[in-house]
Amino acid sequence: MSAFDALMAFQRETEALGQIAGRLSWDQEAAMPKGAAPQRGEEMAAIEAVLHARRTDPRIGDWLAEARPEGPVAAAQIREIQRSYARNTKVPARLAAEIARETSLAHGVWAEARAAEDWAAFEPVLARIVALRREEGAALAGAGGDAYDALIEDYEPGTSAAEIAALFDELRPGLVSLRERILGAEVAVPVLDHGFDEAGQLRLSAELAEVFGYDLAHGRIDKAVHPFSSGSGLDVRITTRTDPRDPFNCIYSTIHEVGHATYEQAVERDFLLTPIGRGASMGVHESQSRIYENQLGRSEAFTGFLFNRMTAVFGEFGIADAREFYRAANRVHRGYIRTEADEVQYNLHIMLRFDLERALIAGDLAVADLPGAWNERFARDFGVPVERPSQGVLQDVHWSAGLFGYFPTYTLGNVYAGCLHEALRAALPDLDAQLAEGHLAGATGWLRDALQRHGGLYLPREVITRACGREPGAGPLLAYLEAKFGALYGV
Amino acid sequence: MSAFDALMAFQRETEALGQIAGRLSWDQEAAMPKGAAPQRGEEMAAIEAVLHARRTDPRIGDWLAEARPEGPVAAAQIREIQRSYARNTKVPARLAAEIARETSLAHGVWAEARAAEDWAAFEPVLARIVALRREEGAALAGAGGDAYDALIEDYEPGTSAAEIAALFDELRPGLVSLRERILGAEVAVPVLDHGFDEAGQLRLSAELAEVFGYDLAHGRIDKAVHPFSSGSGLDVRITTRTDPRDPFNCIYSTIHEVGHATYEQAVERDFLLTPIGRGASMGVHESQSRIYENQLGRSEAFTGFLFNRMTAVFGEFGIADAREFYRAANRVHRGYIRTEADEVQYNLHIMLRFDLERALIAGDLAVADLPGAWNERFARDFGVPVERPSQGVLQDVHWSAGLFGYFPTYTLGNVYAGCLHEALRAALPDLDAQLAEGHLAGATGWLRDALQRHGGLYLPREVITRACGREPGAGPLLAYLEAKFGALYGV
Repeated sequence: MSAFDALMAFQRETEALGQIAGRLSWDQEAAMPKGAAPQRGEEMAAIEAVLHARRTDPRIGDWLAEARPEGPVAAAQIREIQRSYARNTKVPARLAAEIARETSLAHGVWAEARAAEDWAAFEPVLARIVALRREEGAALAGAGGDAYDALIEDYEPGTSAAEIAALFDELRPGLVSLRERILGAEVAVPVLDHGFDEAGQLRLSAELAEVFGYDLAHGRIDKAVHPFSSGSGLDVRITTRTDPRDPFNCIYSTIHEVGHATYEQAVERDFLLTPIGRGASMGVHESQSRIYENQLGRSEAFTGFLFNRMTAVFGEFGIADAREFYRAANRVHRGYIRTEADEVQYNLHIMLRFDLERALIAGDLAVADLPGAWNERFARDFGVPVERPSQGVLQDVHWSAGLFGYFPTYTLGNVYAGCLHEALRAALPDLDAQLAEGHLAGATGWLRDALQRHGGLYLPREVITRACGREPGAGPLLAYLEAKFGALYGV
Repeated sequence: MSAFDALMAFQRETEALGQIAGRLSWDQEAAMPKGAAPQRGEEMAAIEAVLHARRTDPRIGDWLAEARPEGPVAAAQIREIQRSYARNTKVPARLAAEIARETSLAHGVWAEARAAEDWAAFEPVLARIVALRREEGAALAGAGGDAYDALIEDYEPGTSAAEIAALFDELRPGLVSLRERILGAEVAVPVLDHGFDEAGQLRLSAELAEVFGYDLAHGRIDKAVHPFSSGSGLDVRITTRTDPRDPFNCIYSTIHEVGHATYEQAVERDFLLTPIGRGASMGVHESQSRIYENQLGRSEAFTGFLFNRMTAVFGEFGIADAREFYRAANRVHRGYIRTEADEVQYNLHIMLRFDLERALIAGDLAVADLPGAWNERFARDFGVPVERPSQGVLQDVHWSAGLFGYFPTYTLGNVYAGCLHEALRAALPDLDAQLAEGHLAGATGWLRDALQRHGGLYLPREVITRACGREPGAGPLLAYLEAKFGALYGV
């Protein structure tokens, strides 16, 4: 067997074990009995230790030195293995196991603290997680490197905090201006104010998942506290949640997760259980979930179709017509919760988190001072005070899971989605006519062919550039938001 | 760190990984999307390969040689590690991985073949599994040893096929005689002939699970094709199934699985994620599920309580009174399905499977001849011809999962349950008064203290002997069946 083949065979088993670890995480949020958390912590630590040992196996170094990959696919496999090996050999097994154990236990603590509005219960756990991730970031960055940059590299290869900050600086003025004009105009927008039964919401969201191309023979939908997508290849699961008075919560988080899940399902089957058998990065992933949710799902054309489906499922629900429904689905309003934010303000939520977590990892902000810093920044950016931890510092699952460097990829995804949407409109001139009929196959087919099927074959920036025919930038997103919300609010 | 402590730390991680593999199996039957099977096969093979490598790690041999265990608990841990190490070092990693992959894929094939009544679709898969298990049994047994005995050792340490055959020979005449007298008497017994809505069945079975002491903070109940219990320690899950016209199917399979699950939940917390942190053997396990289901759950006292609960949940359902209900719950009738068999005939179903699988592993019966052999034996033992594979050779999941040597432990469990029931009655003279009120805490508490909490601390025969105060034998089970069914049928 050649060195390349031996390396790929070894890697295939590692990928399979990685899928198992991912499925355990799914189980933890969608199925696990509450009292199992301590045991699960040990289980996660054990599989993470196995994965860490495999990912740092010195034979990988030998195989890499000898491998002679032929063709672009083999070269991409080697590129990904090289990146992972370089990364993982820098993190001690002890530290990897501690992070796994701590974040597994933290999930239950976070969920209970959020329910009880009890920041103090979560603070020591988060302090330990931040310390562990800082230690990891420092180990990854090496002497003279930046710990937060090193953490970002996991989610968005080739991107630094400084580059992200520069992009955010480019986006921010346009968003702030648009937001202020909209909220200043004080245009009355209809709000759904009705009861929507849970079974109907789950039925409709499952229907929409299939409309957007989700393959339930290779996936499933469950309820969980936080919606997410999990797994690659032949087993890609999503979760959703319901709010009896706000069906948009369930519907749009489902469409969002379907964007992630169909991306994983669309990757070339030849890449199954290989290092490129998954999405290219978190930012590219988010571009898919965002374009499904927003540019497609909240378009005037598609909301016309959705209005009819909702009327069929729930009966009349207090919204006069499709135009009013479109306005309701795109209401820009003051709110605390990132996942419920509109397209105009969403990226401001991200910028807040980016700055705070960057400061936490740099050591410029102590965990004990985090709620104060959050609340001060939120009041400044959004003009309203945070009243409860669940509106603020306890609202997101990410930090309890140890995800630092992940939040900025949401806004990178929005930027990429803006670029892809521009290219998609150029490729499908009659897109609105299709969306109005609930036919998503044209749009999702274009995304599958232009981007999704490639998985990790290309680096993030390259796969976006290939799909769009030009380098990504903030321009298309800002232009789209100005055009859509300028017209909606007459500003 | 001492050799003993190092060994236990290593073992703890292996146990955690074993729990993960078990949870994957649960997932496969209770949650996995159907199309994921090929990928799951690779995942199971990967984790089995990891487990096999750990269980055969030469360091275990070194640690065992140096370990100086202090006290009976440490000695039992060493005993179990020694047994597992000796077993696993005899099986090549390649063979262990092949068995994992083949049985994972086989499950879907079996389920589809059963639904389609298509033996031919399953035959080549089963042939490969039998060949793999024969190879494994031969490797375990070594020169001059018996392959089937070696497979039994996994489920019931210290028991041979010859010993089981002798026990079965002791049981068989009494069972055959009782069965013939009952069926010959042609006593009319009421049958449930009514619709029972699924939601009510699931609600009632969940209630009964808690009545029998199942802790849902450390467990959950899902629907699956085949009821089973899975996991140890803090995460012990069960599955159940429903039949719209036969609520006993759901109710008694739930109580049965609760017997298994509470055993796992009751093991001393100090034993968590150690080699003795689980039931002592499959036979001892089955003694718990059987005594819960039959000696307790189908007693006249408890069925009186159950009759009232069923009337409350389903309304009047065509059974006149508690006495008639007791008779319906203990109806002895001709039937094809092992899991639906009554206490009198159940062990005859096991004896059939024991003889056939013993012949398969010995090479005295070819897989191609299995349906014929099954049908011939069934007609002889039960007096009716098998008409469809789902009534016969395709009815059980076990062989598709590679479980050879497992079936006889069901009857060992019945024998042990007979012994434990005799001791329980002696210890709790007012047991019937408790059962009539739906108070199971006395009985389950006695079982927990006398047996369940010990987990794998003692060998199977020893833990039964300690709980009962005497060596196990077939006498108590035969006496119990004669007394109960003799009275019920006047024979």
